[in-house]
Amino acid sequence: MPAGSSFGLLFRVTSFGESHGKCIGVVVDGVPAGLPLSERDVYKELLLRRPGHRWATQRREPDRPEILSGVFNGRTTGAPVAIIVWNRDVDSRPYEEVRCKPRPGHADLAYIEKYGWENWDYRGGGRASGRETVARVAAGAIAKKLLLAAGIRVYGRLAEIGGVELVDPASEPSEEELRAARHSPLRVHDPSLEERVAGMIEEARRQGDSLGGVVEAVAFGVPPGLGDPVFDKLKADLAKAAMSIPAAVGFEVGLGFRLARMRGSEARDPIRKAGGRVIPVGPAHGGMLGGISVGTPIRIRVAFKPTSSIPRPIETWNVCKDKPDVIRVKGRHDPALVVRAVAVVEAMMAVVLADHALRNGLIPANRLGEEHVERIERLWEEAYPCPRWASDCNI
Amino acid sequence: MPAGSSFGLLFRVTSFGESHGKCIGVVVDGVPAGLPLSERDVYKELLLRRPGHRWATQRREPDRPEILSGVFNGRTTGAPVAIIVWNRDVDSRPYEEVRCKPRPGHADLAYIEKYGWENWDYRGGGRASGRETVARVAAGAIAKKLLLAAGIRVYGRLAEIGGVELVDPASEPSEEELRAARHSPLRVHDPSLEERVAGMIEEARRQGDSLGGVVEAVAFGVPPGLGDPVFDKLKADLAKAAMSIPAAVGFEVGLGFRLARMRGSEARDPIRKAGGRVIPVGPAHGGMLGGISVGTPIRIRVAFKPTSSIPRPIETWNVCKDKPDVIRVKGRHDPALVVRAVAVVEAMMAVVLADHALRNGLIPANRLGEEHVERIERLWEEAYPCPRWASDCNI
Amino acid sequence: MPAGSSFGLLFRVTSFGESHGKCIGVVVDGVPAGLPLSERDVYKELLLRRPGHRWATQRREPDRPEILSGVFNGRTTGAPVAIIVWNRDVDSRPYEEVRCKPRPGHADLAYIEKYGWENWDYRGGGRASGRETVARVAAGAIAKKLLLAAGIRVYGRLAEIGGVELVDPASEPSEEELRAARHSPLRVHDPSLEERVAGMIEEARRQGDSLGGVVEAVAFGVPPGLGDPVFDKLKADLAKAAMSIPAAVGFEVGLGFRLARMRGSEARDPIRKAGGRVIPVGPAHGGMLGGISVGTPIRIRVAFKPTSSIPRPIETWNVCKDKPDVIRVKGRHDPALVVRAVAVVEAMMAVVLADHALRNGLIPANRLGEEHVERIERLWEEAYPCPRWASDCNI
Amino acid sequence: MPAGSSFGLLFRVTSFGESHGKCIGVVVDGVPAGLPLSERDVYKELLLRRPGHRWATQRREPDRPEILSGVFNGRTTGAPVAIIVWNRDVDSRPYEEVRCKPRPGHADLAYIEKYGWENWDYRGGGRASGRETVARVAAGAIAKKLLLAAGIRVYGRLAEIGGVELVDPASEPSEEELRAARHSPLRVHDPSLEERVAGMIEEARRQGDSLGGVVEAVAFGVPPGLGDPVFDKLKADLAKAAMSIPAAVGFEVGLGFRLARMRGSEARDPIRKAGGRVIPVGPAHGGMLGGISVGTPIRIRVAFKPTSSIPRPIETWNVCKDKPDVIRVKGRHDPALVVRAVAVVEAMMAVVLADHALRNGLIPANRLGEEHVERIERLWEEAYPCPRWASDCNI
Repeated sequence: MPAGSSFGLLFRVTSFGESHGKCIGVVVDGVPAGLPLSERDVYKELLLRRPGHRWATQRREPDRPEILSGVFNGRTTGAPVAIIVWNRDVDSRPYEEVRCKPRPGHADLAYIEKYGWENWDYRGGGRASGRETVARVAAGAIAKKLLLAAGIRVYGRLAEIGGVELVDPASEPSEEELRAARHSPLRVHDPSLEERVAGMIEEARRQGDSLGGVVEAVAFGVPPGLGDPVFDKLKADLAKAAMSIPAAVGFEVGLGFRLARMRGSEARDPIRKAGGRVIPVGPAHGGMLGGISVGTPIRIRVAFKPTSSIPRPIETWNVCKDKPDVIRVKGRHDPALVVRAVAVVEAMMAVVLADHALRNGLIPANRLGEEHVERIERLWEEAYPCPRWASDCNI
Repeated sequence: MPAGSSFGLLFRVTSFGESHGKCIGVVVDGVPAGLPLSERDVYKELLLRRPGHRWATQRREPDRPEILSGVFNGRTTGAPVAIIVWNRDVDSRPYEEVRCKPRPGHADLAYIEKYGWENWDYRGGGRASGRETVARVAAGAIAKKLLLAAGIRVYGRLAEIGGVELVDPASEPSEEELRAARHSPLRVHDPSLEERVAGMIEEARRQGDSLGGVVEAVAFGVPPGLGDPVFDKLKADLAKAAMSIPAAVGFEVGLGFRLARMRGSEARDPIRKAGGRVIPVGPAHGGMLGGISVGTPIRIRVAFKPTSSIPRPIETWNVCKDKPDVIRVKGRHDPALVVRAVAVVEAMMAVVLADHALRNGLIPANRLGEEHVERIERLWEEAYPCPRWASDCNI
Repeated sequence: MPAGSSFGLLFRVTSFGESHGKCIGVVVDGVPAGLPLSERDVYKELLLRRPGHRWATQRREPDRPEILSGVFNGRTTGAPVAIIVWNRDVDSRPYEEVRCKPRPGHADLAYIEKYGWENWDYRGGGRASGRETVARVAAGAIAKKLLLAAGIRVYGRLAEIGGVELVDPASEPSEEELRAARHSPLRVHDPSLEERVAGMIEEARRQGDSLGGVVEAVAFGVPPGLGDPVFDKLKADLAKAAMSIPAAVGFEVGLGFRLARMRGSEARDPIRKAGGRVIPVGPAHGGMLGGISVGTPIRIRVAFKPTSSIPRPIETWNVCKDKPDVIRVKGRHDPALVVRAVAVVEAMMAVVLADHALRNGLIPANRLGEEHVERIERLWEEAYPCPRWASDCNI
Repeated sequence: MPAGSSFGLLFRVTSFGESHGKCIGVVVDGVPAGLPLSERDVYKELLLRRPGHRWATQRREPDRPEILSGVFNGRTTGAPVAIIVWNRDVDSRPYEEVRCKPRPGHADLAYIEKYGWENWDYRGGGRASGRETVARVAAGAIAKKLLLAAGIRVYGRLAEIGGVELVDPASEPSEEELRAARHSPLRVHDPSLEERVAGMIEEARRQGDSLGGVVEAVAFGVPPGLGDPVFDKLKADLAKAAMSIPAAVGFEVGLGFRLARMRGSEARDPIRKAGGRVIPVGPAHGGMLGGISVGTPIRIRVAFKPTSSIPRPIETWNVCKDKPDVIRVKGRHDPALVVRAVAVVEAMMAVVLADHALRNGLIPANRLGEEHVERIERLWEEAYPCPRWASDCNI
């Protein structure tokens, strides 16, 4: 597996750890010196993807991050920041069955083929588990905080679930709404939607079934010029980041697939001067032209398939006995992983933007100035407050 | 612009050149020695993206590739293969207007902001022109040929245009159909669709308008195990490759966004043994699980927005006079660039697969064996024939 | 600090941790599945760079590695292998003085300038400490073991100390001698040299001074064809690897600087057939031509400056008081770090060779076969035995 | 050959072409927009490595560069700059003999082993020829010019030839002397040395022999903070760059191997305040501590072996007849390639520094400001004048 566990050119994230191993860990290299960073900062973001709310998996993990390196006297030093989250609530027994019966819709079969059945860490999905996204969200916490040095804020919300659209992609994204979604355990921007969505998930769970959906993520405050022509377009790097998330099956920018059905005369946003800046006015391009940011909010949407781990039986092949078999996936699973995927999409978007912000000199490579630190400290709790449903973000 | 013009880890493509500069060029590093390669091989593929068929732009470029390095006595040597296509039919006059009036929907504004108006090569879209894709298709020709050493074939077709679906993503992809699409100037797999699609494009053109659409690409013969966990998932690298194409606005694998609207119980393909191999049976996952190939065809879909360059006027901002203005894009443009995008998506998919084939040792890094060469020579014209509409693929 | 903490393309080593932080850690991505790996394997190699033998620093670290990920049932899974060595015997008090007085010959001044004095982890050299090499040696243990799958063995020895040559670079390297050096606490290949070298070091220590020297490393069993033309020549990657080691000041291959003083007629090794293979016969080129291995042992030499941390006073600049000052470096330091550098050069050479072995398909990317595992298990203790001076390599 | 033809992270150089192919070419990606660049600028630097002066090879190449892309109206656009030098004076006949008889000291044998004899472009050394360095020097011309934006100047000179030292590495490097070396066809800083060196080379040539030597390169004006800790130390990247040059066999920084023979008490440069800056005073570390620049000149030395292509016969193995044989290398070769290597070392040093200058934000990633352009235009001819021995640098 050559180097597949790292992402980014200048803001470089390296993930390690397995679902039922000792820990999930991440090393973030390329963080400038001087960024105030605490375990609470990371914990606050990890809460957003935390298994354990009412509709999610029953695995109970405290997910308290431990910063191993790169921080001295509360600030980053320029050295790589390594963060570990120890696995506590591990129960590998339900996976003995999986060992012989690769779960349809899961990576099991692919790992068996690629690495050999005998080398496969089948416990809890091993390396392919959704739990790996702890590493991404921890890295995303650093990226989000760093981006505040340039005034960039990144938010996500549930845009669609079980076929029900909650967000109109042609509307103008509102930072207020997106911040509101942070306080919703279901990541919806409008509290009145909460009950309906909860009902849908609950119903799917009762039926032993699951729902898919779409996550929207928006970055506000991105100046023009991020993204590089040809292969490292911002939309391309965002696509890779998003599609690397487990269960992601689709990606679009701006109006995306809708644009493909429109006429050219409808699909172009006119260019106007607004607030002193020349910008395209409209939702079509998601804040990018030619793959480069133009000063309006960057907007992406990521489709997630419904959770494959459901109690309903499905045909599989028993690789121990070399015969057809049936599996009912046990374990503790979330009937709508798309809800927790919101935090992961946010994190990956932040990682991409931090990388491009560094590439473009928007954030200094070696150390932040005091003006950056002040800006960060002023905005951090305002832009990314402790979610209201959490009694406390202290660690 | 840091390193944004290269793509791939082991099969490394570096693109250069501008629409109205001297040439478009590409350097492909990482091609093993011993691959038979001629300028005809590249030309044959370039024909597929060639501007100049009836419905496309009126720019007349012979697009004859010149191989500058890396080939000796008709075979690659292991050295980087550089290929140039000289620009011949350049008319920059229509772009004088563009210099002051960035075209909505184009990269113009982004380049002005990023590199400075005074440094901007505004002629013909400069580096952001669709003409840059000549480099991609030339690299794709090498990738396609190389992949035959492992028995892998890559095809594309028009899957949707102007909102009309031509391909059901839930159907099983047929290699025969996809090969047929190679012979269609509109890249449709069924000749009976040709007239209808031509009519739609013609009508849009008459109205001074344009159409968007969706390209499907499928790779047959991909063995299990390509793609690396976590960040370098095959679906992630394919997403980056696809979304780096000009005008690409969406990407999906398998059933993609449709999956997000399905229930878990419908969205999982069962695992069975077929033809001696254990595989998931069905269209859901597009040939990958956990981002790793499982031995069934790899299937992706890429959404393209309608051509932005249309004669209909649109509001823009005159950056020379700093006042609102209107632009009617002149020049010679294609009312449905999605047709020509098929060749580009194919090429980018081939580049990604060649890279992963090398990463996984499926193709030897240093030199092909005679068995590989025989396989390549046997399959090359069969899998990728000269398109019937071209009188000749000789150069 | 953009991505400077990672090394390698396919065998990718990411280092983290500080001298007086919680730990030193390393993540190795790209290890194929199926490699037998235990904490003892890593510990055995760490012993070779261990501070604490008689002539070395007095810092007492058990240096027991903990494998955090990537190993299941005693074998690697293809997932990244993370290894931590916790720092135990940390005494930061002597470094309070350093905070204001950057130590001449050390990285202190550079870190202050680059990251800002206020962000600088000055304790024990922080990130620039020789202790960081724990990460390299741990990664090297994996690389060494993996290379046995291809029959490659990597050894080092002390070639020169305090100006006294212990090895003639024009002689043919003997694997037996190099293995013998593993058992010597001073890393000399001939036990009769031990006393003399010990005397030199002891004398330097008594004088409050230190010695520099040259490390030789040799790889046996490297087949022809490793290394890539132009920029990724094997000699170039070895040079980068070696010169990235703290205190390294020079690098050469084969006869190196001596060659520069020879005539062409003396400097070419003739090509002959020996043992069924066509090879250059002689020491001139260190086993490479054009930067590519030719089937003879690869031989490099790395010069290390004398330890800068010595009790003798030296002028420095007091950055707190902005005035000239004098520092006498306290702390617990090694009067001849070149002795411990042997293990680090070995490790870095192994990392480079493992990377190139993977690039060239010499070792399979995804998983080892049983024949590889047998070879590894047969050779591991034979090629890399527990050093005799260690009572025990168990952990 | 995976990606071995590219170098650099942000200032990315991709080389292509063979000695007796159509051309040597280079693509430089990552050049900010706004850099004034002409073919004359590149030509002026290419003259310095030009074969054809009295003591050099008799191959007569005009070496006139053609800029293919990335420049518009005399300034770079931010797009990749591709430069071609067409091969004109090619005579492949002398190489028919080489085809069967790999030349000792050359890469021939390595290429045969790696890529297969049948795929080997044996003409003129193919890809391994010294002619490939045209690409490096062309890239170096851009790097040198770009570095002037930050006030950095890079020079080289002949430091040692045939065992005779021309430069004392413990002396303080003088920019005046180094500039003088630019005007010497033998790259010596003191015109009075010219005759002696010429005599040595001439004598070696008459004897059918050749000389090796050492190149020194020095960068003035480098501010503190370039270079990244751990693996991407400036000394490490310089080492890779230098050792990737054909015939390079050794590398050192500062006092290098001499340091290894000194005592710690002699080997540390004291830290003082000079010219308002706190710096180490002395030659020991070559301007770097911990691999990071400290504000004094960066100084490296690179050892080159004597030219292997000499008329004296030497034993080789006839791979066509599988029997011992003798070769007398014909062709047109330089009895002291180290003289021409000066330009290549300069170029590679400039490429590394440009990369690190971009990494550290010393030079803006996207576009230069007018203050940069003015500085560049003011310094370009002053720092890098047309060499006096060339009648003219116009193209």
